[in-house]
Amino acid sequence: MKIENDATLPSGFRAAGLHVGLKKSGASDMALLVSDTPATVAAVFTSNQIKAAPVKWCMARAASRKGRAVVINSGNANCCTGEKGLRDAAQMAEWTASELGVKASDVYVCSTGSIGFDLDMKTIGRGIPRLAEALSPQGGEEAAQGIMTTDNAPKFVTTSFKADGKTVRVTGIAKGAGMIEPNMATMLCFLMTDAAVAPSSLQKALKSAVNESFNRISVDGDQSTNDTVLCFANGASGSDSLKPGHPGWAAFEEALLQVARVLAWKMIRDGEGADKVIKVEVTGAGTAKDAELAARSVANSLLVKTSWHGTNPKWGRVMDALGYSPARVDESKVSIAYDGVVAVRNGIKTKASPDRLKKIHSQERFTITIDLGLGKGASYVFGCDCAHKYIDINI
Amino acid sequence: MKIENDATLPSGFRAAGLHVGLKKSGASDMALLVSDTPATVAAVFTSNQIKAAPVKWCMARAASRKGRAVVINSGNANCCTGEKGLRDAAQMAEWTASELGVKASDVYVCSTGSIGFDLDMKTIGRGIPRLAEALSPQGGEEAAQGIMTTDNAPKFVTTSFKADGKTVRVTGIAKGAGMIEPNMATMLCFLMTDAAVAPSSLQKALKSAVNESFNRISVDGDQSTNDTVLCFANGASGSDSLKPGHPGWAAFEEALLQVARVLAWKMIRDGEGADKVIKVEVTGAGTAKDAELAARSVANSLLVKTSWHGTNPKWGRVMDALGYSPARVDESKVSIAYDGVVAVRNGIKTKASPDRLKKIHSQERFTITIDLGLGKGASYVFGCDCAHKYIDINI
Repeated sequence: MKIENDATLPSGFRAAGLHVGLKKSGASDMALLVSDTPATVAAVFTSNQIKAAPVKWCMARAASRKGRAVVINSGNANCCTGEKGLRDAAQMAEWTASELGVKASDVYVCSTGSIGFDLDMKTIGRGIPRLAEALSPQGGEEAAQGIMTTDNAPKFVTTSFKADGKTVRVTGIAKGAGMIEPNMATMLCFLMTDAAVAPSSLQKALKSAVNESFNRISVDGDQSTNDTVLCFANGASGSDSLKPGHPGWAAFEEALLQVARVLAWKMIRDGEGADKVIKVEVTGAGTAKDAELAARSVANSLLVKTSWHGTNPKWGRVMDALGYSPARVDESKVSIAYDGVVAVRNGIKTKASPDRLKKIHSQERFTITIDLGLGKGASYVFGCDCAHKYIDINI
Repeated sequence: MKIENDATLPSGFRAAGLHVGLKKSGASDMALLVSDTPATVAAVFTSNQIKAAPVKWCMARAASRKGRAVVINSGNANCCTGEKGLRDAAQMAEWTASELGVKASDVYVCSTGSIGFDLDMKTIGRGIPRLAEALSPQGGEEAAQGIMTTDNAPKFVTTSFKADGKTVRVTGIAKGAGMIEPNMATMLCFLMTDAAVAPSSLQKALKSAVNESFNRISVDGDQSTNDTVLCFANGASGSDSLKPGHPGWAAFEEALLQVARVLAWKMIRDGEGADKVIKVEVTGAGTAKDAELAARSVANSLLVKTSWHGTNPKWGRVMDALGYSPARVDESKVSIAYDGVVAVRNGIKTKASPDRLKKIHSQERFTITIDLGLGKGASYVFGCDCAHKYIDINI
């Protein structure tokens, strides 16, 4: 399955992205994605207890497991905006529905940007007709630009495979340069496919793909009020309805996962202010949950992140973060390796050359493998270093 | 009760601090505190699952609730050092006991510094007799210097009160510029009093004082492998044995709490790279535990900390951190005030002047009061901003 770094849309999808006037910088600030025919929709939302108005709107829509379009603005999160925020999100859906000739309940709405400010509805109201007019099967990249905030580059990826003799395409566009920054760097991802997929199977496949992609990255441990992943499947490829048991199902699941993984990778690579991506692998944990808790504790430790930035193999900080994680840890059974070079065995440092470890830490990408020596639980998370730039971006 | 910024020791205590050769910088790197007579001892240790060798030594000693001395080195944590580390900690106690003519089991041992390196026992062995020789009732300040790592200044404080017509003194010395950094900024605190105190009452009073002082500060959310608080009560003031019900008990509890609080304040004020101290108060939580979880989530959010550094009243980040905390939160009931100026009421921003909020954020010290509007649970934590300097110190 070839993953391609372009934004080719699957059959029956059109997209647009424009500067409508929300961002003073003149950067693109709205996007619209449309399926020409009714699509099956799966969705995953933030687990933050405080949810932005558009998230509430989408959650209500997603219950139907169908939809036609999603309209997105960047520059303002429409969060902590009370009743007016809910009305504004509904209004965005209504205006979009009216332009497209569909029902407002089939239009999803996402926002990303600062919390606590009312949307400039006059500007949005003028922008939506322009977006509808600009819709094109070639508009994927423009749409990816329209949803950016602190991202350094638009994020998109596509892949295709054969099912029932038809070519099926899966394309994703996303934004996010933090996991997850509420003020500027919410994570949004829109996945589109021309496969026909049974609604409950699509939701299951999306949840699983998100768990093995976006849920495996951490820039700063923050989770946004606006995080949203939507997946539209419109069946325009002419494939039969895919679901478990169908010969094309495994390929579809794999395509969805790979597209999500590449987008997650692009996010962590673009992590606010970060220079490096580090995979923290935990094996030998008492349970899979413990492995995940241990990996997150290490990846989110500010002390570990600053030592990565300083290219210093301070494995003592890794031990410390393991020790205060909620996972069960026995110091005398812990081993730590950097790109396969074992620095700690049974809780004690080995004779591994400090220079060699320092060289590994100076790479843009490396893997820390932590074996807890307690059981068979395994998990991983991608983290990044913490640099001055992170502070500068978020100050 | 007057809190004085000096290191006057209570009656019957002597102290010393010296450069013995562990730190290449030539800075003071060992300290010794001694009670001339057997003292009652209370202790609180790190809850990190990975504990340094001296912590394990102290935990075994503290079961007896008595002791005579504590010997401390800075520059090396003697952590993740296996069996040799345990032998080295025991050896430090034995050498000290031999110099003082007491039992090794009455000598406590603390270490602070880098994790994973064997102690330089030759240097320590030469240092201990010199420390014993330098012991003096005036040695409190030198001892405070001997335990410093990234601290910008030694930390000590004393207070006194009357019990049974006798003057009772409580003095504390401490180190720590993070809550808590394992590699350099472990928190150590030694409290000494010439009160006589019943052992179980001393332990209870210490636990309560620690909970309302050191457990209420957070620099970076990390908890060290070496954190230790020891309290020695030798009775040299001639007071009766203090315990609940004794007329002097309330004053003693208060003295212990105030000394611990001032030392905790000195730590957060010296927070690595920090310019500001912010009190995060949570009221109206469903439970006291929820209030604490909510306060910690806000105080430890890297995004909140960077916005404090930037003097930006980004209350949206506070809302976000509340939303992802484990505490129960209902957006529509949250109010947020900065030094009494209400910025958010029922989840919506007020008309409070942004300039006024920015001015409050530019102070070296301010209070955020968060009312969750759900119940009567209340708690607080002192946090600090996150600056470039934090990264520079920990790189």
